[in-house]
Amino acid sequence: MARVYNFSAGPAVLPEEVLKEAAAEMLDYQGSGQSVMEMSHRSKVFDKIIKDAEQDLRDLLNIPDNYKVLFLQGGAHLQFAMIPMNLMKNRVADYIVTGQWAKRAFKEAQKFGDAKCIASSEDKTFSYIPDCSDLPIDENADYVYICENNTIYGTKFKTLPNTKGKDLVADVSSCFLSEPMDVTKYAVIYGGAQKNIGPAGVVIAIIREDLITEDVLPGTPTMLQYKTHADNDSLYNTPPCYGIYICGKVFKWLKKQGGLEVMKERNEKKAAILYDFLDQSKLFKGTVEKNSRSLMNVPFVTGDADLDAKFIKEATEAGFVNLKGHRSVGGMRASIYNAMPIEGVEKLVAFMKKFEEENA
Amino acid sequence: MARVYNFSAGPAVLPEEVLKEAAAEMLDYQGSGQSVMEMSHRSKVFDKIIKDAEQDLRDLLNIPDNYKVLFLQGGAHLQFAMIPMNLMKNRVADYIVTGQWAKRAFKEAQKFGDAKCIASSEDKTFSYIPDCSDLPIDENADYVYICENNTIYGTKFKTLPNTKGKDLVADVSSCFLSEPMDVTKYAVIYGGAQKNIGPAGVVIAIIREDLITEDVLPGTPTMLQYKTHADNDSLYNTPPCYGIYICGKVFKWLKKQGGLEVMKERNEKKAAILYDFLDQSKLFKGTVEKNSRSLMNVPFVTGDADLDAKFIKEATEAGFVNLKGHRSVGGMRASIYNAMPIEGVEKLVAFMKKFEEENA
Repeated sequence: MARVYNFSAGPAVLPEEVLKEAAAEMLDYQGSGQSVMEMSHRSKVFDKIIKDAEQDLRDLLNIPDNYKVLFLQGGAHLQFAMIPMNLMKNRVADYIVTGQWAKRAFKEAQKFGDAKCIASSEDKTFSYIPDCSDLPIDENADYVYICENNTIYGTKFKTLPNTKGKDLVADVSSCFLSEPMDVTKYAVIYGGAQKNIGPAGVVIAIIREDLITEDVLPGTPTMLQYKTHADNDSLYNTPPCYGIYICGKVFKWLKKQGGLEVMKERNEKKAAILYDFLDQSKLFKGTVEKNSRSLMNVPFVTGDADLDAKFIKEATEAGFVNLKGHRSVGGMRASIYNAMPIEGVEKLVAFMKKFEEENA
Repeated sequence: MARVYNFSAGPAVLPEEVLKEAAAEMLDYQGSGQSVMEMSHRSKVFDKIIKDAEQDLRDLLNIPDNYKVLFLQGGAHLQFAMIPMNLMKNRVADYIVTGQWAKRAFKEAQKFGDAKCIASSEDKTFSYIPDCSDLPIDENADYVYICENNTIYGTKFKTLPNTKGKDLVADVSSCFLSEPMDVTKYAVIYGGAQKNIGPAGVVIAIIREDLITEDVLPGTPTMLQYKTHADNDSLYNTPPCYGIYICGKVFKWLKKQGGLEVMKERNEKKAAILYDFLDQSKLFKGTVEKNSRSLMNVPFVTGDADLDAKFIKEATEAGFVNLKGHRSVGGMRASIYNAMPIEGVEKLVAFMKKFEEENA
């Protein structure tokens, strides 16, 4: 079978160039005689891989020197605990709940202190981003938490919440590196790699240095302290080396494409092709309020579960795979991350048009 | 450059067959049109990968039905915390400290309760396994903890400690699947994959079911509860999919070799070649008491740091890499895991003989 157009929400499509390089280097990474999977994480060869990955990420996001970049494990789910355990000095935090993952983060934080939900869009199945211009931020809040792009529901914060001077923590798993961002507006940015960056099993956290202290909640495991990893340049213990290597390749690929400004343009163009079609279709309908639409995840429905199923089946047979929507939204979802080429979206829309004609 | 003989302690050499298959499948896993890195962890294709991996591991180790197999993240270091957080119901545990990792596990457990060191070999740089036939096991101990094979020091428990009826927890990272083991003698067996099984970023835990409960220490993060992962067949969140896929390939490779009885024979033969040479050499000397010798990690020294450095340099040039010993032991260490072919050890010994002659 040829390569498919893979619209998976994550793990997700990676640049073909990156996979080809990885395949070519599998038995012998650049003359080392070893696979990257086989080499010591303390070796000079791997040291260059992880240092280059960090530097390329810093270049792409223009990360200031007073932010640490950490390569961690455990997925966003482990960050749901690490964030309160490391940052909840006053044991107060404000959460904006715009989807299932923000809700999980909020619930987890409640284990550790007074985590409050100060805004939510659950009333309409998380199909919009609430107005966050004047929220009741607690004056003792250690931070305000958001999930910036909601993978399941296809929404994204177009403007960051007004945190009234409090530190902002953002899960950017599904919009990481999809467009430029101003790192200085955040205290912590983190994301699982498996959506827009690399394979599952790597989490990247970008943390303002003054927040990395020994003053963590009692009973915080050593491995769950940011300081443990920051003090050791992500090499306190064996990191997920191969995953970091692939992330590094994706960073180089992004630089080669022209960086995040170019990716933003391309992503806007791709998303517009799909949204413009949805907006005029008589069969397919987007599920998200227009001003909250994500560039990365595009959920849509026909309104008829049987027809949705038929569409997904025929699309799969035609090489457009992983289009089934999350069970909480139903219907379809096309995730169109950085590595999804524009022709993948064009061909999907052509296929949708044809399906609409055939099923009018 | 050709493939080298890689004696790294971990991440470490993998079977060439496995790497070749992985390279061939990188852009299209078995007709799916996707890399394993790109596919949803909820897809049927990945479901078969993880289920097959578990079943093959169960076959290899003859794991009874009342044990769960979990694929986790965070390395052995995260287990150092997860074990007390999940198992320390009485807040008492006994640790046998035979190396740096056992010591770290012990220190971490002290955060959570009354962890006691009931035996240690630190007096002689961990160069032996203490007599564990009649230790002062606490009558309230929730478990007794060992690191069964000590990667840095090259020692291994030849008989398991007498736990006087208490549950035994073992870190087997560096001897995992190197020989058969009787799983029923343990409450928990766990190991990082990156030594004898696969890439870094996967930890496999084999846990007796009755120990997997909601009764964990207060403040244990959801992700650090075994029950979270057990209830979801290791798919509570996105697992390290690609690493699990490689582990699965290694399990199939081990079955093809004939299973763990065959690996044991082969590993004994490999280790004997090296130990027999060390025992008669006038230049090189093993650092471990004979009855505590590991089959997997073989530290040795010349007694002269300059000569050690010269050996390591010349060995590296000759294609025998990662032979430098851990700084706490000095000298050299040859890790000869399952995937190290017998000719790798034979050629290393031939090289050592030549070096000895040249430097007599």
